[in-house]
Amino acid sequence: MPRVAPRALHARSALAAESVFSVMSRLAVQYGAVNLGQGFPAGSPPEFLLEALKTQAGAADQYTAPAGLPALREALAADLTTAAAVVRPEQVTVTCGATEAMHALADALYGTGTDGAGDEVLMFEPVFDIYRPQALLSGATPVLVGMTLTPEGWQPDLDGLERLVTPRTRALLVNNPHNPTGHVFTRAELERIVQLARQHDLWIIADEVYDELYFGEAPVPLRELAPERTFTVGSAGKRLEATGWRIGWIVSPAQVASQVTASQVIATQVTGLHQWATFCAPTPLQSAVAAALPIARQTGFYEDLRASYGARMRLLASGLRSLGLTVQQPGGSYFLTALAPGLDPWHLVEHGGLAVIPGSAFYAEGSAPDGLIRLAFCKPASEILRALERLESYLGR
Amino acid sequence: MPRVAPRALHARSALAAESVFSVMSRLAVQYGAVNLGQGFPAGSPPEFLLEALKTQAGAADQYTAPAGLPALREALAADLTTAAAVVRPEQVTVTCGATEAMHALADALYGTGTDGAGDEVLMFEPVFDIYRPQALLSGATPVLVGMTLTPEGWQPDLDGLERLVTPRTRALLVNNPHNPTGHVFTRAELERIVQLARQHDLWIIADEVYDELYFGEAPVPLRELAPERTFTVGSAGKRLEATGWRIGWIVSPAQVASQVTASQVIATQVTGLHQWATFCAPTPLQSAVAAALPIARQTGFYEDLRASYGARMRLLASGLRSLGLTVQQPGGSYFLTALAPGLDPWHLVEHGGLAVIPGSAFYAEGSAPDGLIRLAFCKPASEILRALERLESYLGR
Ligand SMILES: Cc1ncc(COP(=O)(O)O)c(C=O)c1O
Ligand SMILES: Cc1ncc(COP(=O)(O)O)c(C=O)c1O
Repeated sequence: MPRVAPRALHARSALAAESVFSVMSRLAVQYGAVNLGQGFPAGSPPEFLLEALKTQAGAADQYTAPAGLPALREALAADLTTAAAVVRPEQVTVTCGATEAMHALADALYGTGTDGAGDEVLMFEPVFDIYRPQALLSGATPVLVGMTLTPEGWQPDLDGLERLVTPRTRALLVNNPHNPTGHVFTRAELERIVQLARQHDLWIIADEVYDELYFGEAPVPLRELAPERTFTVGSAGKRLEATGWRIGWIVSPAQVASQVTASQVIATQVTGLHQWATFCAPTPLQSAVAAALPIARQTGFYEDLRASYGARMRLLASGLRSLGLTVQQPGGSYFLTALAPGLDPWHLVEHGGLAVIPGSAFYAEGSAPDGLIRLAFCKPASEILRALERLESYLGR
Repeated sequence: MPRVAPRALHARSALAAESVFSVMSRLAVQYGAVNLGQGFPAGSPPEFLLEALKTQAGAADQYTAPAGLPALREALAADLTTAAAVVRPEQVTVTCGATEAMHALADALYGTGTDGAGDEVLMFEPVFDIYRPQALLSGATPVLVGMTLTPEGWQPDLDGLERLVTPRTRALLVNNPHNPTGHVFTRAELERIVQLARQHDLWIIADEVYDELYFGEAPVPLRELAPERTFTVGSAGKRLEATGWRIGWIVSPAQVASQVTASQVIATQVTGLHQWATFCAPTPLQSAVAAALPIARQTGFYEDLRASYGARMRLLASGLRSLGLTVQQPGGSYFLTALAPGLDPWHLVEHGGLAVIPGSAFYAEGSAPDGLIRLAFCKPASEILRALERLESYLGR
């Protein structure tokens, strides 16, 4: 008879909760519900990406350098370079999704201070679910900055941000376009954020996974405004509709910090920490993404993506409004928020056959606005129509 | 003019050194050297794996559950179940390589204790390079247990192991077959280790990535001997000659620890921590591995692998011996160690055109046996012959 292991796991396993997104997707399958919950496209990735994978099969299947396949670092540098900010391949670290990019940055930038107390990391609330546990795992303390729900939509509380900076603050996390609100930060908002970061000497982590998914003004990459302190995070999964591929990236600041010796630029140190988590990102998928990025750019893939997602966004938003919900029109991402006071998503998925994410998933305990829900529109129009029908009959009962 | 970011990175970036393996591979390319350094197969993965990937293209490209694609969890449970120990799919967590498996276990099992001091983790030295930084990143203290170099080969110092256990010890890391020595722990050695782990109530992490690569007795899976406290780590990259695919796994203990509530079995908590590092492993590659695992078993792929690697191992070992080196015959893995007193691998790669790994890569500062080197034989026989020729002319000079 094997003995029962009496040891508990380490205290940090308290952070191991199953995410609402996974639970909701599971319930959607269980109850046969239409799933506008978790943010993944319903269909397959574009043919040129799948073709690139099939073409390279057998050519790039062994370890590559932890920083990434040279071809992909070069493709990303070319793709991300703008008139206002050059990106060099040496700044790029390829990771296992944006999730691992954020994890490597948490390792590299904050944790406990020399006095044993946690560094502080500012992030906007409603907040994407991985940010808080990642900060806590690193030993740091997440500090939530409000976003105000106005009749015109969401507004980051930048006065609040300024008040929340303390001598312990090390970094500021900006997700733009923003999940779950779809808010696209204006240039003026970003400039105020950069000014604050410079004044208090904070690192900026710019989670720009939805950089190609906007419906009005294009979001301004933060590295253009603060190249010396901005880490940009991106995701091939979001850009190329292949969320299961787990190819993400970090663009580290170009400058060498004065405390860091010349031979150890920041990107090298970020890569050196990423290597202890996953060693390197999957080589065959890196190779396919490297081939696909210029094709996406040349064939107008992102314009098509915006047109197609924009149409579905408007379909969903106007449908929800006609059912009496208040909808916050998103400027980007593939999510929108709406207010449906009294609606319980757990009851809805079971009895109404529709999965959406409760606003509480993005807020500290008990502080979510009443009736706030998030809906994903990266689904076929037919699914969105079915979702609206189901919601109508559920609300009508 | 952008301002220079004056902040340093977090203190843990001191752990971000580029590994000897990457450096050596880079130098091998630079000097046109034969590379018996880093442990990756020279060729492509087997055709049935590449076929499985091409066949599924477009069918499994979005997020899957953090625990893994159900088909792969089932395929692994079936593959890993032996007469002595059943593995159920619910015990399996699929990760981004064995590297991320070890990282998730470091998060789940140790770190700093409630008093703020580090937990202790026992591991055998020579030690695979990721173990120490991963333990340090978690906040724990790696404690090295010796392996003795005898005329018959390597022997783990089990008396030393017993002496090094303290009240702070939480876990014991056993890599079997062992990198870099190729040692396959005997059943008697494993039983003594299990007895010790039970006596002092330690978790066992069994890094069994080379489980199918042995040349004499098959290694005994530790989960057969201590199912209640063993976490098994495996790697599709090592088994299927696709090190760049980054598909690894953890099999958590089947028992539910008494401190853990019934609904939160250990595997669920391990998965819950893995999700904050990478969310899930790449879906298309998981799908292909799921299809390939039973084919590998049915077609005798692992027997062929052992025969082919065994022949190359003997070629390398006898060649090195005829050049006067002392070789420790490996029982498994795709590495062997040898003694070449006075040989400097950094000089050899530049002036002799051969890359090998210096023994110091696997030891705490300054404690490696003089002239110890590690050579990988997962390379074509022609490469091994060229390596021997180059070494001969280098030594003859
Ligand atoms: C804001 C944001 N950041 C990061 C991620 C994770 O991206 P990836 O799938 O590349 O890990 C997501 C996924 O939903 C996201 O919404
Ligand atoms: C003993 C050992 N464990 C783990 C690994 C990492 O395996 P993976 O490539 O699946 O991350 C290696 C790779 O060399 C290894 O030798």
